[in-house]
Amino acid sequence: MNSVKTAIQPLDREMGQQVREYIDTLTKPPGSLGRLEELAIQLAEMTSEAFPVVSPPGVIVFAADHGVVEEGVSAFPQEVTVQMVMNFLNSGAAINVFSRQIGAKFEVVDIGVAADIEADGFVNRKIRYGTNNFCQQDAMTREEAEEAIAVGYERAEQMIHQGIKCLIVGEMGIGNTTPSSAIAAVLSGKDIGALVGRGTGIATEKIRHKQEVIIRALKERNPDRKDPIDILAKIGGLEIAGMTGAMLSAARNRIPILVDGFICTIAALLAREICETAADYMMVGHRSVEPGHEIALELLGKKPLLDLDLRLGEGSGAAVAFPILQSATLMLKEMATFASAGISNE
Amino acid sequence: MNSVKTAIQPLDREMGQQVREYIDTLTKPPGSLGRLEELAIQLAEMTSEAFPVVSPPGVIVFAADHGVVEEGVSAFPQEVTVQMVMNFLNSGAAINVFSRQIGAKFEVVDIGVAADIEADGFVNRKIRYGTNNFCQQDAMTREEAEEAIAVGYERAEQMIHQGIKCLIVGEMGIGNTTPSSAIAAVLSGKDIGALVGRGTGIATEKIRHKQEVIIRALKERNPDRKDPIDILAKIGGLEIAGMTGAMLSAARNRIPILVDGFICTIAALLAREICETAADYMMVGHRSVEPGHEIALELLGKKPLLDLDLRLGEGSGAAVAFPILQSATLMLKEMATFASAGISNE
Repeated sequence: MNSVKTAIQPLDREMGQQVREYIDTLTKPPGSLGRLEELAIQLAEMTSEAFPVVSPPGVIVFAADHGVVEEGVSAFPQEVTVQMVMNFLNSGAAINVFSRQIGAKFEVVDIGVAADIEADGFVNRKIRYGTNNFCQQDAMTREEAEEAIAVGYERAEQMIHQGIKCLIVGEMGIGNTTPSSAIAAVLSGKDIGALVGRGTGIATEKIRHKQEVIIRALKERNPDRKDPIDILAKIGGLEIAGMTGAMLSAARNRIPILVDGFICTIAALLAREICETAADYMMVGHRSVEPGHEIALELLGKKPLLDLDLRLGEGSGAAVAFPILQSATLMLKEMATFASAGISNE
Repeated sequence: MNSVKTAIQPLDREMGQQVREYIDTLTKPPGSLGRLEELAIQLAEMTSEAFPVVSPPGVIVFAADHGVVEEGVSAFPQEVTVQMVMNFLNSGAAINVFSRQIGAKFEVVDIGVAADIEADGFVNRKIRYGTNNFCQQDAMTREEAEEAIAVGYERAEQMIHQGIKCLIVGEMGIGNTTPSSAIAAVLSGKDIGALVGRGTGIATEKIRHKQEVIIRALKERNPDRKDPIDILAKIGGLEIAGMTGAMLSAARNRIPILVDGFICTIAALLAREICETAADYMMVGHRSVEPGHEIALELLGKKPLLDLDLRLGEGSGAAVAFPILQSATLMLKEMATFASAGISNE
């Protein structure tokens, strides 16, 4: 972990400034492409490229189960995790559709599904058959949390080696808004009431129950706010740790990261806890309806690109937002300058 | 105009309901794709297709000049209109870049540029060399306004005949936030102070001057709120009328319209004044920084897809938003159902 920490380089502000000045020579009123201009500058700072590219993107979906579903916190039964992994492998899920739309390299990693997956075409890095119910004991050991981060790191390295220019990480894990809300409470110090929502669609009376489960878990587990591995081990999830590791790899390789919704933003915050500079390589794809996302976004200090009332996960919101990054890079690369087009620029 | 009015059909609510029910069988929690689901339903209602498509889109940019620039309301000199038309023809403008990104058919129409354009590759339907300064006389005659609408209508018919499945209209006309703000004031009854912004980038002291110019023009011209042709003739613009006509054609052909920023939304409002049903075929691509856009959007009663601080025009914001429509249609067409994927759906 310490080697990652020292290996993530700061942004190239000089390149950012160069691109900022170049953008003002393009044939449009200064500043009139708003956030596309900011994105182009950020991508230049991340990549040290005067004309950064983001295609092809890579999408890695980490799947794992959560012992805490025993407490009745989810609208879907646990078996849906493995069923959805099969759906990913058959290309029928939302993230498959949007990954194809954006020309992404796509991979599903079993990092801790509670059942054996009898199929081909996925990456088997199962660390354990789901986490423990963290109301009763730690979700996993410290070593398992570190191993999950390492798996995520390795998968992103692999994709980056294959040539992806932007990383999107997604997740599948029935019940995973519960650990995510618990982690958000620890990192933010906010009241559980403000953080816990419907997840994939539980009823109002069940929200109160979910809040009580988290309050109980936080009291029992009492994770160390200053130690992200302790947080992951005590109240986290294997897919959350995997996403954290993948983002650390992208940052180390100066590959821009497009963060998805609530669970992904929690993983992003943990990556920043491990290495603060990692957050410099992140942009946020969309604002989720899940109430904890707003608080997580505030902590991360980033403004999402889209606000389309999505709450699906899988990386879907980031994939839908990805063409905006493309627009920013194409603006930079393909627009004429006032001088080249012979246009009056007072 | 009356033949258009009777020819625009109401939305197919039955098809919308059918698609709404189908969406709830897709492998995701109900409602979890938020506005993508709403868009898919709207597109089905517009097109009467259970699996609507929006590709390829068509982009038509109408270019014209404005006599009111004599009053010093713009940051750029009038010659920039023709220079930007040349830039469009050389594929160097933002709208060229984004049109290529989304695989759009693209066309530039000179509907009233104040100079002769010496080039190939554009559609010459010049009605006159720019409008009159509407502080001094009507911008154009009633007949010219109708002719401009007819030109827009014809160009969209032509593109639709070529097979486009979604229409984006853009504009280029130095000074055209001034007539647009004047029209917004007439349609909304709101104070000019709330409506007038920097356009492409005038200084704060010039905003006050621009407001005074519009107040003077409205007093002198006094257009009839109930007569959209009178509004266009007295205080409008040729490219605004062209956009209005193009949108009427799309609505008549049940082709979804993706509205761009402030000026385009004004043209959309005028299309609705001509035929109320036309607005049923419109979605809004983005929220512009131009203050009048918020008021125009309220009048149109539509929520934009993007909010990226854009204020360029040309159709650029709509083109950047277009992939979101694609995502909605691909979700519908390519996602598996719970039944087909064998997933537990309590």
